[in-house]
Amino acid sequence: MNRRPLILVCNDDGVHAPGLQYLTEVAHRLGEVVVVAPDSPQSGMGHAVTINDTLRVADMSRQKGYPMYSCSGTPVDCVKLAMNKLLPRRPDLVVSGINHGSNSSVNVIYSGTMSAAIEGAIAGITSLGFSLCDHSYDADFGPSLPWVEKLMALALYEAPVKGMCLNVNFPKGPVKGYRFVRQARAYWAEEMDERTDPRGGKYFWLTGVFEVPDTGRDTDEYVLSQGYASVVPVTFDLTDYAVLEKLRQMAHAAAEKE
Amino acid sequence: MNRRPLILVCNDDGVHAPGLQYLTEVAHRLGEVVVVAPDSPQSGMGHAVTINDTLRVADMSRQKGYPMYSCSGTPVDCVKLAMNKLLPRRPDLVVSGINHGSNSSVNVIYSGTMSAAIEGAIAGITSLGFSLCDHSYDADFGPSLPWVEKLMALALYEAPVKGMCLNVNFPKGPVKGYRFVRQARAYWAEEMDERTDPRGGKYFWLTGVFEVPDTGRDTDEYVLSQGYASVVPVTFDLTDYAVLEKLRQMAHAAAEKE
Repeated sequence: MNRRPLILVCNDDGVHAPGLQYLTEVAHRLGEVVVVAPDSPQSGMGHAVTINDTLRVADMSRQKGYPMYSCSGTPVDCVKLAMNKLLPRRPDLVVSGINHGSNSSVNVIYSGTMSAAIEGAIAGITSLGFSLCDHSYDADFGPSLPWVEKLMALALYEAPVKGMCLNVNFPKGPVKGYRFVRQARAYWAEEMDERTDPRGGKYFWLTGVFEVPDTGRDTDEYVLSQGYASVVPVTFDLTDYAVLEKLRQMAHAAAEKE
Repeated sequence: MNRRPLILVCNDDGVHAPGLQYLTEVAHRLGEVVVVAPDSPQSGMGHAVTINDTLRVADMSRQKGYPMYSCSGTPVDCVKLAMNKLLPRRPDLVVSGINHGSNSSVNVIYSGTMSAAIEGAIAGITSLGFSLCDHSYDADFGPSLPWVEKLMALALYEAPVKGMCLNVNFPKGPVKGYRFVRQARAYWAEEMDERTDPRGGKYFWLTGVFEVPDTGRDTDEYVLSQGYASVVPVTFDLTDYAVLEKLRQMAHAAAEKE
Protein backbone atom coordinates (compact mmCIF):
# COMPACT_ATOMS: atom_id res chain seq x y z
CA MET A 1 0.00 0.00 0.00
CA ASN A 2 1.40 3.36 -1.02
CA ARG A 3 -0.98 5.42 1.06
CA ARG A 4 -2.27 4.76 4.56
CA PRO A 5 -4.85 1.98 4.65
CA LEU A 6 -8.53 2.97 4.66
CA ILE A 7 -10.37 1.59 7.69
CA LEU A 8 -14.16 1.52 8.01
CA VAL A 9 -15.32 1.62 11.64
CA CYS A 10 -18.83 0.41 12.59
CA ASN A 11 -20.63 -0.86 15.66
CA ASP A 12 -24.05 -1.88 16.91
CA ASP A 13 -24.25 0.14 20.13
CA GLY A 14 -24.67 3.34 18.09
CA VAL A 15 -22.65 6.48 17.33
CA HIS A 16 -22.57 7.64 20.95
CA ALA A 17 -21.18 4.45 22.51
CA PRO A 18 -17.80 4.81 24.28
CA GLY A 19 -16.61 1.54 22.70
CA LEU A 20 -16.92 3.08 19.22
CA GLN A 21 -14.87 6.08 20.32
CA TYR A 22 -12.06 3.86 21.61
CA LEU A 23 -12.03 1.73 18.46
CA THR A 24 -11.93 4.87 16.29
CA GLU A 25 -8.94 6.21 18.24
CA VAL A 26 -6.99 2.98 17.71
CA ALA A 27 -7.93 2.92 14.01
CA HIS A 28 -6.58 6.45 13.57
CA ARG A 29 -3.12 5.23 14.63
CA LEU A 30 -3.10 2.72 11.78
CA GLY A 31 -4.81 4.41 8.87
CA GLU A 32 -7.30 6.76 7.32
CA VAL A 33 -10.64 6.30 9.10
CA VAL A 34 -14.32 6.65 8.18
CA VAL A 35 -16.91 5.88 10.85
CA VAL A 36 -20.46 4.80 9.87
CA ALA A 37 -22.60 3.67 12.80
CA PRO A 38 -26.28 3.37 13.72
CA ASP A 39 -27.98 6.46 15.15
CA SER A 40 -29.36 4.37 18.05
CA PRO A 41 -28.41 1.14 19.84
CA GLN A 42 -28.94 -1.98 17.69
CA SER A 43 -27.86 -4.79 20.01
CA GLY A 44 -29.23 -8.19 19.13
CA MET A 45 -30.05 -7.13 15.58
CA GLY A 46 -28.15 -10.07 14.09
CA HIS A 47 -27.71 -9.80 10.35
CA ALA A 48 -30.85 -7.70 9.87
CA VAL A 49 -31.09 -5.45 6.81
CA THR A 50 -33.61 -2.70 6.13
CA ILE A 51 -35.54 -3.61 2.99
CA ASN A 52 -39.04 -2.37 3.79
CA ASP A 53 -38.05 1.10 4.94
CA THR A 54 -35.83 3.97 3.85
CA LEU A 55 -32.39 4.78 5.24
CA ARG A 56 -31.29 8.20 6.45
CA VAL A 57 -27.72 9.37 6.92
CA ALA A 58 -26.47 12.32 9.00
CA ASP A 59 -22.97 13.71 8.44
CA MET A 60 -21.29 14.29 11.83
CA SER A 61 -17.84 14.96 10.31
CA ARG A 62 -17.68 18.69 11.08
CA GLN A 63 -18.33 18.22 14.80
CA LYS A 64 -15.98 15.22 15.00
CA GLY A 65 -13.08 16.53 12.91
CA TYR A 66 -12.94 13.29 10.86
CA PRO A 67 -15.37 11.54 8.50
CA MET A 68 -18.21 10.16 10.58
CA TYR A 69 -21.80 9.34 9.64
CA SER A 70 -24.80 8.18 11.63
CA CYS A 71 -27.32 5.95 9.86
CA SER A 72 -30.96 5.14 10.66
CA GLY A 73 -30.50 1.46 9.83
CA THR A 74 -28.90 -1.67 11.22
CA PRO A 75 -25.17 -2.40 11.53
CA VAL A 76 -25.30 -4.32 8.23
CA ASP A 77 -27.04 -1.36 6.56
CA CYS A 78 -24.18 0.86 7.79
CA VAL A 79 -21.59 -1.32 6.03
CA LYS A 80 -23.64 -1.44 2.83
CA LEU A 81 -24.14 2.33 2.85
CA ALA A 82 -20.46 2.92 3.57
CA MET A 83 -19.27 0.66 0.75
CA ASN A 84 -21.72 2.10 -1.76
CA LYS A 85 -22.06 5.76 -0.92
CA LEU A 86 -19.84 7.09 1.86
CA LEU A 87 -16.30 5.71 1.43
CA PRO A 88 -13.87 7.44 -0.96
CA ARG A 89 -12.62 4.00 -2.13
CA ARG A 90 -12.80 0.31 -1.26
CA PRO A 91 -11.60 -0.07 2.35
CA ASP A 92 -8.60 -2.19 3.35
CA LEU A 93 -10.20 -3.21 6.63
CA VAL A 94 -13.60 -3.20 8.34
CA VAL A 95 -13.62 -3.06 12.16
CA SER A 96 -16.73 -3.23 14.33
CA GLY A 97 -17.17 -2.51 18.04
CA ILE A 98 -15.88 -2.35 20.59
CA ASN A 99 -19.11 -3.95 21.75
CA HIS A 100 -20.30 -3.40 25.30
CA GLY A 101 -20.87 -7.07 26.15
CA SER A 102 -19.73 -10.50 24.99
CA ASN A 103 -20.19 -11.86 21.48
CA SER A 104 -18.38 -15.10 22.14
CA SER A 105 -19.65 -18.55 21.26
CA VAL A 106 -23.16 -18.76 19.78
CA ASN A 107 -23.70 -15.05 20.49
CA VAL A 108 -21.90 -14.41 17.20
CA ILE A 109 -25.22 -15.27 15.53
CA TYR A 110 -27.30 -12.70 17.43
CA SER A 111 -24.67 -9.99 17.32
CA GLY A 112 -25.06 -6.81 15.30
CA THR A 113 -21.36 -6.07 15.93
CA MET A 114 -20.32 -9.34 14.28
CA SER A 115 -22.86 -8.98 11.49
CA ALA A 116 -21.22 -5.72 10.43
CA ALA A 117 -17.86 -7.53 10.33
CA ILE A 118 -19.34 -10.52 8.46
CA GLU A 119 -20.90 -8.14 5.93
CA GLY A 120 -17.42 -6.70 5.31
CA ALA A 121 -16.06 -10.20 4.75
CA ILE A 122 -18.91 -11.04 2.35
CA ALA A 123 -17.73 -8.02 0.34
CA GLY A 124 -14.22 -9.52 0.35
CA ILE A 125 -12.72 -7.14 2.92
CA THR A 126 -10.74 -8.47 5.90
CA SER A 127 -12.92 -7.69 8.91
CA LEU A 128 -12.66 -7.74 12.69
CA GLY A 129 -15.38 -7.54 15.31
CA PHE A 130 -14.31 -6.60 18.85
CA SER A 131 -16.33 -7.13 22.03
CA LEU A 132 -15.60 -6.68 25.73
CA CYS A 133 -17.25 -9.07 28.18
CA ASP A 134 -18.69 -6.18 30.18
CA HIS A 135 -22.15 -4.82 29.38
CA SER A 136 -21.87 -1.57 31.33
CA TYR A 137 -21.84 1.79 29.58
CA ASP A 138 -18.69 2.85 31.48
CA ALA A 139 -16.88 -0.48 30.98
CA ASP A 140 -13.07 -0.22 31.19
CA PHE A 141 -11.81 -0.68 27.63
CA GLY A 142 -8.22 0.24 28.62
CA PRO A 143 -6.71 -3.27 28.94
CA SER A 144 -8.08 -4.34 25.55
CA LEU A 145 -6.79 -1.40 23.48
CA PRO A 146 -3.16 -2.55 22.92
CA TRP A 147 -4.53 -5.89 21.69
CA VAL A 148 -7.05 -4.21 19.43
CA GLU A 149 -4.15 -2.36 17.80
CA LYS A 150 -2.00 -5.51 17.47
CA LEU A 151 -4.85 -7.47 15.88
CA MET A 152 -5.74 -4.65 13.50
CA ALA A 153 -2.07 -4.49 12.39
CA LEU A 154 -2.05 -8.29 11.98
CA ALA A 155 -5.21 -8.12 9.87
CA LEU A 156 -3.77 -5.35 7.68
CA TYR A 157 -0.29 -6.76 7.14
CA GLU A 158 -0.16 -10.45 8.07
CA ALA A 159 -3.62 -11.88 7.32
CA PRO A 160 -3.07 -15.46 6.10
CA VAL A 161 -6.32 -15.24 4.14
CA LYS A 162 -7.53 -12.02 2.51
CA GLY A 163 -11.14 -11.33 3.41
CA MET A 164 -10.98 -13.36 6.63
CA CYS A 165 -13.31 -12.35 9.45
CA LEU A 166 -12.30 -12.54 13.12
CA ASN A 167 -14.55 -12.49 16.18
CA VAL A 168 -12.44 -11.02 19.00
CA ASN A 169 -13.67 -11.03 22.61
CA PHE A 170 -11.83 -9.54 25.56
CA PRO A 171 -12.21 -10.70 29.16
CA LYS A 172 -13.26 -8.15 31.74
CA GLY A 173 -10.15 -6.94 33.57
CA PRO A 174 -6.52 -7.54 32.60
CA VAL A 175 -5.78 -9.21 29.23
CA LYS A 176 -2.88 -11.70 29.19
CA GLY A 177 -2.75 -11.97 25.39
CA TYR A 178 -4.87 -13.58 22.70
CA ARG A 179 -5.50 -17.12 21.49
CA PHE A 180 -6.81 -18.43 18.14
CA VAL A 181 -9.71 -20.71 19.07
CA ARG A 182 -13.02 -22.21 17.89
CA GLN A 183 -16.56 -21.19 18.84
CA ALA A 184 -17.70 -23.10 21.96
CA ARG A 185 -20.94 -25.06 21.76
CA ALA A 186 -23.25 -23.10 24.02
CA TYR A 187 -26.80 -21.82 24.20
CA TRP A 188 -29.12 -19.54 26.11
CA ALA A 189 -31.42 -21.32 28.55
CA GLU A 190 -34.10 -18.78 27.85
CA GLU A 191 -36.76 -17.59 30.14
CA MET A 192 -39.61 -15.28 29.41
CA ASP A 193 -40.17 -12.86 32.25
CA GLU A 194 -43.97 -12.50 32.16
CA ARG A 195 -45.51 -9.24 33.44
CA THR A 196 -48.80 -7.40 33.44
CA ASP A 197 -49.15 -3.83 32.17
CA PRO A 198 -51.24 -1.15 33.96
CA ARG A 199 -54.24 -2.06 31.77
CA GLY A 200 -54.06 -5.76 32.59
CA GLY A 201 -52.35 -6.81 29.35
CA LYS A 202 -49.69 -9.50 29.45
CA TYR A 203 -46.20 -8.87 28.10
CA PHE A 204 -42.80 -10.56 28.17
CA TRP A 205 -39.14 -9.66 28.56
CA LEU A 206 -36.65 -12.02 26.97
CA THR A 207 -34.09 -13.12 29.55
CA GLY A 208 -32.05 -16.21 30.30
CA VAL A 209 -28.90 -17.94 31.49
CA PHE A 210 -25.94 -18.67 29.22
CA GLU A 211 -25.03 -22.37 29.31
CA VAL A 212 -21.69 -23.74 28.06
CA PRO A 213 -21.69 -27.55 28.10
CA ASP A 214 -18.57 -27.51 25.87
CA THR A 215 -15.46 -27.73 28.11
CA GLY A 216 -12.88 -27.85 25.28
CA ARG A 217 -9.68 -25.92 25.97
CA ASP A 218 -9.56 -24.84 22.33
CA THR A 219 -12.74 -22.74 22.71
CA ASP A 220 -13.38 -19.04 23.10
CA GLU A 221 -15.20 -19.54 26.41
CA TYR A 222 -12.25 -21.43 27.90
CA VAL A 223 -9.51 -18.93 27.00
CA LEU A 224 -11.71 -16.02 28.09
CA SER A 225 -12.10 -17.72 31.49
CA GLN A 226 -8.28 -17.86 31.66
CA GLY A 227 -7.83 -14.13 31.04
CA TYR A 228 -6.98 -14.27 27.32
CA ALA A 229 -8.74 -12.58 24.43
CA SER A 230 -10.44 -15.13 22.16
CA VAL A 231 -9.97 -14.83 18.39
CA VAL A 232 -12.36 -17.00 16.36
CA PRO A 233 -12.18 -16.90 12.55
CA VAL A 234 -15.75 -16.76 11.24
CA THR A 235 -17.23 -18.06 7.99
CA PHE A 236 -20.42 -17.07 6.19
CA ASP A 237 -20.66 -20.42 4.41
CA LEU A 238 -23.20 -22.01 6.74
CA THR A 239 -23.19 -25.38 4.94
CA ASP A 240 -22.85 -28.21 7.45
CA TYR A 241 -20.58 -30.43 5.34
CA ALA A 242 -20.65 -33.34 7.82
CA VAL A 243 -24.46 -33.52 7.70
CA LEU A 244 -24.39 -33.00 3.92
CA GLU A 245 -22.20 -36.09 3.54
CA LYS A 246 -24.59 -38.16 5.66
CA LEU A 247 -27.64 -36.94 3.72
CA ARG A 248 -25.96 -37.83 0.43
CA GLN A 249 -25.07 -41.32 1.67
CA MET A 250 -28.68 -41.77 2.76
CA ALA A 251 -30.00 -40.62 -0.65
CA HIS A 252 -27.50 -42.88 -2.41
CA ALA A 253 -28.55 -45.92 -0.35
CA ALA A 254 -32.23 -45.19 -1.05
CA ALA A 255 -31.56 -44.88 -4.79
CA GLU A 256 -29.74 -48.24 -4.84
CA LYS A 257 -32.66 -49.98 -3.17
CA GLU A 258 -35.04 -48.81 -5.91
CA MET B 1 -43.17 -41.69 19.23
CA ASN B 2 -46.40 -42.94 20.78
CA ARG B 3 -48.42 -39.84 20.02
CA ARG B 4 -48.39 -37.69 16.89
CA PRO B 5 -45.27 -35.54 16.66
CA LEU B 6 -45.52 -31.92 17.82
CA ILE B 7 -44.60 -29.48 15.06
CA LEU B 8 -43.89 -25.79 15.66
CA VAL B 9 -44.63 -23.65 12.59
CA CYS B 10 -43.06 -20.19 12.21
CA ASN B 11 -42.24 -17.75 9.43
CA ASP B 12 -40.93 -14.25 8.82
CA ASP B 13 -43.61 -12.92 6.46
CA GLY B 14 -46.08 -12.72 9.35
CA VAL B 15 -49.27 -14.49 10.45
CA HIS B 16 -51.25 -13.42 7.39
CA ALA B 17 -48.85 -14.67 4.72
CA PRO B 18 -50.25 -17.35 2.37
CA GLY B 19 -46.97 -19.30 2.61
CA LEU B 20 -47.56 -19.82 6.35
CA GLN B 21 -51.05 -21.11 5.68
CA TYR B 22 -49.78 -23.69 3.18
CA LEU B 23 -47.01 -24.85 5.50
CA THR B 24 -49.49 -25.20 8.37
CA GLU B 25 -51.80 -27.32 6.22
CA VAL B 26 -48.97 -29.72 5.33
CA ALA B 27 -47.83 -29.86 8.98
CA HIS B 28 -51.35 -30.85 10.06
CA ARG B 29 -51.08 -33.98 7.87
CA LEU B 30 -48.03 -35.13 9.83
CA GLY B 31 -48.63 -34.12 13.42
CA GLU B 32 -50.03 -31.89 16.12
CA VAL B 33 -49.36 -28.28 15.15
CA VAL B 34 -48.78 -24.99 16.99
CA VAL B 35 -48.20 -21.86 14.91
CA VAL B 36 -46.27 -18.89 16.37
CA ALA B 37 -45.51 -16.16 13.85
CA PRO B 38 -44.75 -12.43 13.80
CA ASP B 39 -47.71 -10.06 13.75
CA SER B 40 -46.16 -8.15 10.82
CA PRO B 41 -43.70 -8.93 8.01
CA GLN B 42 -40.12 -9.38 9.26
CA SER B 43 -38.22 -10.07 6.06
CA GLY B 44 -34.49 -9.42 6.24
CA MET B 45 -34.50 -9.51 10.03
CA GLY B 46 -31.68 -12.07 10.14
CA HIS B 47 -31.12 -13.53 13.57
CA ALA B 48 -32.43 -10.43 15.36
CA VAL B 49 -33.79 -10.81 18.90
CA THR B 50 -35.78 -8.27 20.90
CA ILE B 51 -33.79 -7.43 24.02
CA ASN B 52 -34.50 -3.73 24.47
CA ASP B 53 -38.27 -3.96 24.15
CA THR B 54 -41.16 -6.05 25.42
CA LEU B 55 -42.91 -8.83 23.54
CA ARG B 56 -46.67 -9.15 23.11
CA VAL B 57 -48.56 -12.29 22.16
CA ALA B 58 -52.10 -12.54 20.75
CA ASP B 59 -53.95 -15.86 20.81
CA MET B 60 -55.62 -16.46 17.44
CA SER B 61 -56.55 -20.09 18.22
CA ARG B 62 -60.30 -19.58 18.52
CA GLN B 63 -60.63 -17.98 15.07
CA LYS B 64 -58.28 -20.50 13.47
CA GLY B 65 -59.54 -23.70 15.09
CA TYR B 66 -56.03 -24.80 16.03
CA PRO B 67 -53.33 -23.35 18.32
CA MET B 68 -51.96 -20.19 16.68
CA TYR B 69 -50.30 -17.14 18.20
CA SER B 70 -49.11 -13.87 16.74
CA CYS B 71 -46.10 -12.22 18.36
CA SER B 72 -44.83 -8.64 18.26
CA GLY B 73 -41.20 -9.73 17.90
CA THR B 74 -38.86 -11.21 15.33
CA PRO B 75 -38.95 -14.78 13.93
CA VAL B 76 -36.30 -15.80 16.50
CA ASP B 77 -38.39 -14.27 19.30
CA CYS B 78 -41.33 -16.39 18.10
CA VAL B 79 -39.32 -19.61 18.50
CA LYS B 80 -38.05 -18.57 21.94
CA LEU B 81 -41.56 -17.65 23.08
CA ALA B 82 -42.98 -20.88 21.70
CA MET B 83 -40.37 -23.06 23.39
CA ASN B 84 -40.68 -21.28 26.73
CA LYS B 85 -44.31 -20.31 27.04
CA LEU B 86 -46.64 -21.48 24.30
CA LEU B 87 -45.90 -25.12 23.47
CA PRO B 88 -47.42 -27.91 25.60
CA ARG B 89 -44.11 -29.84 25.40
CA ARG B 90 -40.77 -29.85 23.61
CA PRO B 91 -41.51 -30.00 19.85
CA ASP B 92 -40.29 -32.81 17.60
CA LEU B 93 -39.79 -30.49 14.65
CA VAL B 94 -39.58 -26.77 13.88
CA VAL B 95 -40.61 -25.66 10.39
CA SER B 96 -40.39 -22.12 9.06
CA GLY B 97 -41.90 -20.54 5.95
CA ILE B 98 -42.90 -21.05 3.30
CA ASN B 99 -41.06 -17.83 2.57
CA HIS B 100 -42.23 -15.65 -0.29
CA GLY B 101 -38.82 -15.28 -1.97
CA SER B 102 -35.49 -17.08 -2.16
CA ASN B 103 -33.26 -17.78 0.84
CA SER B 104 -30.66 -19.70 -1.13
CA SER B 105 -26.94 -19.15 -0.98
CA VAL B 106 -25.72 -16.24 1.17
CA ASN B 107 -29.33 -15.11 1.69
CA VAL B 108 -29.47 -17.67 4.51
CA ILE B 109 -27.63 -15.07 6.61
CA TYR B 110 -30.16 -12.27 6.07
CA SER B 111 -33.20 -14.50 6.31
CA GLY B 112 -35.66 -14.33 9.17
CA THR B 113 -37.20 -17.58 7.92
CA MET B 114 -33.92 -19.42 8.26
CA SER B 115 -33.09 -17.74 11.58
CA ALA B 116 -36.25 -19.22 13.08
CA ALA B 117 -35.13 -22.65 11.85
CA ILE B 118 -31.56 -22.13 13.10
CA GLU B 119 -32.93 -21.07 16.49
CA GLY B 120 -34.80 -24.38 16.63
CA ALA B 121 -31.59 -26.25 15.84
CA ILE B 122 -29.67 -24.31 18.53
CA ALA B 123 -32.28 -25.65 20.95
CA GLY B 124 -31.52 -29.17 19.68
CA ILE B 125 -34.68 -29.59 17.59
CA THR B 126 -34.51 -30.79 13.98
CA SER B 127 -35.57 -27.78 11.92
CA LEU B 128 -36.47 -26.97 8.33
CA GLY B 129 -36.78 -23.61 6.62
CA PHE B 130 -38.73 -23.52 3.34
CA SER B 131 -38.63 -20.78 0.72
CA LEU B 132 -40.07 -20.36 -2.74
CA CYS B 133 -38.08 -18.38 -5.31
CA ASP B 134 -41.04 -16.11 -5.99
CA HIS B 135 -41.51 -12.89 -4.03
CA SER B 136 -45.10 -12.24 -4.99
CA TYR B 137 -47.92 -12.38 -2.45
CA ASP B 138 -49.95 -14.71 -4.66
CA ALA B 139 -47.01 -16.94 -5.57
CA ASP B 140 -48.01 -20.49 -6.62
CA PHE B 141 -46.95 -22.75 -3.75
CA GLY B 142 -48.73 -25.77 -5.26
CA PRO B 143 -45.77 -27.53 -6.91
CA SER B 144 -43.67 -27.30 -3.73
CA LEU B 145 -46.21 -28.77 -1.31
CA PRO B 146 -45.67 -32.52 -1.98
CA TRP B 147 -41.94 -31.97 -1.46
CA VAL B 148 -42.51 -30.00 1.73
CA GLU B 149 -44.43 -33.00 3.07
CA LYS B 150 -41.76 -35.51 1.96
CA LEU B 151 -38.96 -33.47 3.57
CA MET B 152 -40.90 -32.98 6.80
CA ALA B 153 -41.47 -36.74 7.00
CA LEU B 154 -37.77 -37.34 6.28
CA ALA B 155 -36.82 -34.89 9.06
CA LEU B 156 -39.22 -36.56 11.52
CA TYR B 157 -38.41 -40.20 10.80
CA GLU B 158 -35.13 -40.47 8.86
CA ALA B 159 -32.94 -37.55 9.99
CA PRO B 160 -29.35 -38.86 9.95
CA VAL B 161 -28.47 -36.28 12.64
CA LYS B 162 -30.93 -35.21 15.33
CA GLY B 163 -31.11 -31.45 15.59
CA MET B 164 -29.99 -30.91 11.98
CA CYS B 165 -31.19 -27.78 10.20
CA LEU B 166 -32.07 -27.74 6.51
CA ASN B 167 -32.42 -24.73 4.22
CA VAL B 168 -34.90 -25.78 1.51
CA ASN B 169 -35.53 -23.58 -1.54
CA PHE B 170 -38.01 -24.33 -4.31
CA PRO B 171 -37.71 -23.08 -7.88
CA LYS B 172 -40.56 -21.06 -9.32
CA GLY B 173 -42.75 -23.36 -11.40
CA PRO B 174 -42.59 -27.18 -11.56
CA VAL B 175 -40.35 -29.01 -9.08
CA LYS B 176 -38.50 -32.08 -10.45
CA GLY B 177 -37.38 -33.30 -7.02
CA TYR B 178 -34.79 -32.23 -4.47
CA ARG B 179 -30.99 -32.38 -4.19
CA PHE B 180 -28.70 -32.22 -1.14
CA VAL B 181 -26.20 -29.47 -1.95
CA ARG B 182 -23.89 -26.84 -0.48
CA GLN B 183 -24.44 -23.08 -0.22
CA ALA B 184 -23.15 -21.34 -3.38
CA ARG B 185 -20.63 -18.55 -2.97
CA ALA B 186 -22.59 -15.46 -3.95
CA TYR B 187 -23.18 -11.89 -2.90
CA TRP B 188 -25.39 -8.88 -3.47
CA ALA B 189 -23.84 -6.21 -5.68
CA GLU B 190 -25.61 -3.57 -3.67
CA GLU B 191 -26.79 -0.24 -4.83
CA MET B 192 -28.27 2.54 -2.81
CA ASP B 193 -31.15 4.16 -4.64
CA GLU B 194 -30.76 7.79 -3.55
CA ARG B 195 -33.88 9.99 -3.43
CA THR B 196 -35.04 13.33 -2.12
CA ASP B 197 -38.06 13.74 0.15
CA PRO B 198 -40.66 16.56 -0.28
CA ARG B 199 -38.71 18.69 2.22
CA GLY B 200 -35.39 18.32 0.38
CA GLY B 201 -33.94 15.64 2.68
CA LYS B 202 -31.90 12.81 1.19
CA TYR B 203 -32.84 9.19 1.79
CA PHE B 204 -31.88 5.78 0.43
CA TRP B 205 -33.50 2.51 -0.56
CA LEU B 206 -31.34 -0.59 -0.34
CA THR B 207 -31.40 -2.43 -3.67
CA GLY B 208 -29.02 -4.53 -5.72
CA VAL B 209 -28.24 -7.38 -8.05
CA PHE B 210 -27.56 -10.92 -6.87
CA GLU B 211 -24.23 -12.19 -8.22
CA VAL B 212 -23.27 -15.90 -8.25
CA PRO B 213 -19.64 -16.32 -9.37
CA ASP B 214 -19.73 -19.92 -8.03
CA THR B 215 -20.62 -22.26 -10.91
CA GLY B 216 -20.33 -25.53 -8.94
CA ARG B 217 -22.92 -28.17 -9.82
CA ASP B 218 -23.09 -29.18 -6.15
CA THR B 219 -24.59 -25.81 -5.17
CA ASP B 220 -28.08 -24.64 -4.33
CA GLU B 221 -28.06 -22.05 -7.10
CA TYR B 222 -27.18 -24.65 -9.73
CA VAL B 223 -29.85 -27.23 -8.84
CA LEU B 224 -32.48 -24.47 -8.53
CA SER B 225 -31.60 -23.36 -12.06
CA GLN B 226 -32.21 -26.96 -13.19
CA GLY B 227 -35.71 -27.11 -11.66
CA TYR B 228 -34.85 -29.00 -8.45
CA ALA B 229 -35.43 -27.93 -4.86
CA SER B 230 -32.13 -27.26 -3.06
CA VAL B 231 -31.60 -28.73 0.41
CA VAL B 232 -28.59 -27.30 2.26
CA PRO B 233 -27.80 -28.53 5.79
CA VAL B 234 -26.95 -25.47 7.88
CA THR B 235 -24.66 -25.14 10.89
CA PHE B 236 -24.57 -22.50 13.62
CA ASP B 237 -20.91 -23.15 14.39
CA LEU B 238 -19.48 -20.25 12.39
CA THR B 239 -15.84 -21.18 13.12
CA ASP B 240 -13.80 -21.11 9.90
CA TYR B 241 -11.60 -24.12 10.68
CA ALA B 242 -9.41 -23.69 7.57
CA VAL B 243 -8.51 -20.12 8.55
CA LEU B 244 -8.10 -21.19 12.20
CA GLU B 245 -5.47 -23.74 11.14
CA LYS B 246 -3.56 -21.09 9.17
CA LEU B 247 -3.69 -18.60 12.04
CA ARG B 248 -2.36 -21.23 14.44
CA GLN B 249 0.50 -22.13 12.10
CA MET B 250 1.35 -18.43 11.83
CA ALA B 251 1.30 -18.00 15.62
CA HIS B 252 3.42 -21.14 16.03
CA ALA B 253 6.02 -19.92 13.51
CA ALA B 254 6.16 -16.52 15.24
CA ALA B 255 6.64 -18.18 18.66
CA GLU B 256 9.51 -20.31 17.31
CA LYS B 257 11.32 -17.24 15.98
CA GLU B 258 11.32 -15.64 19.43
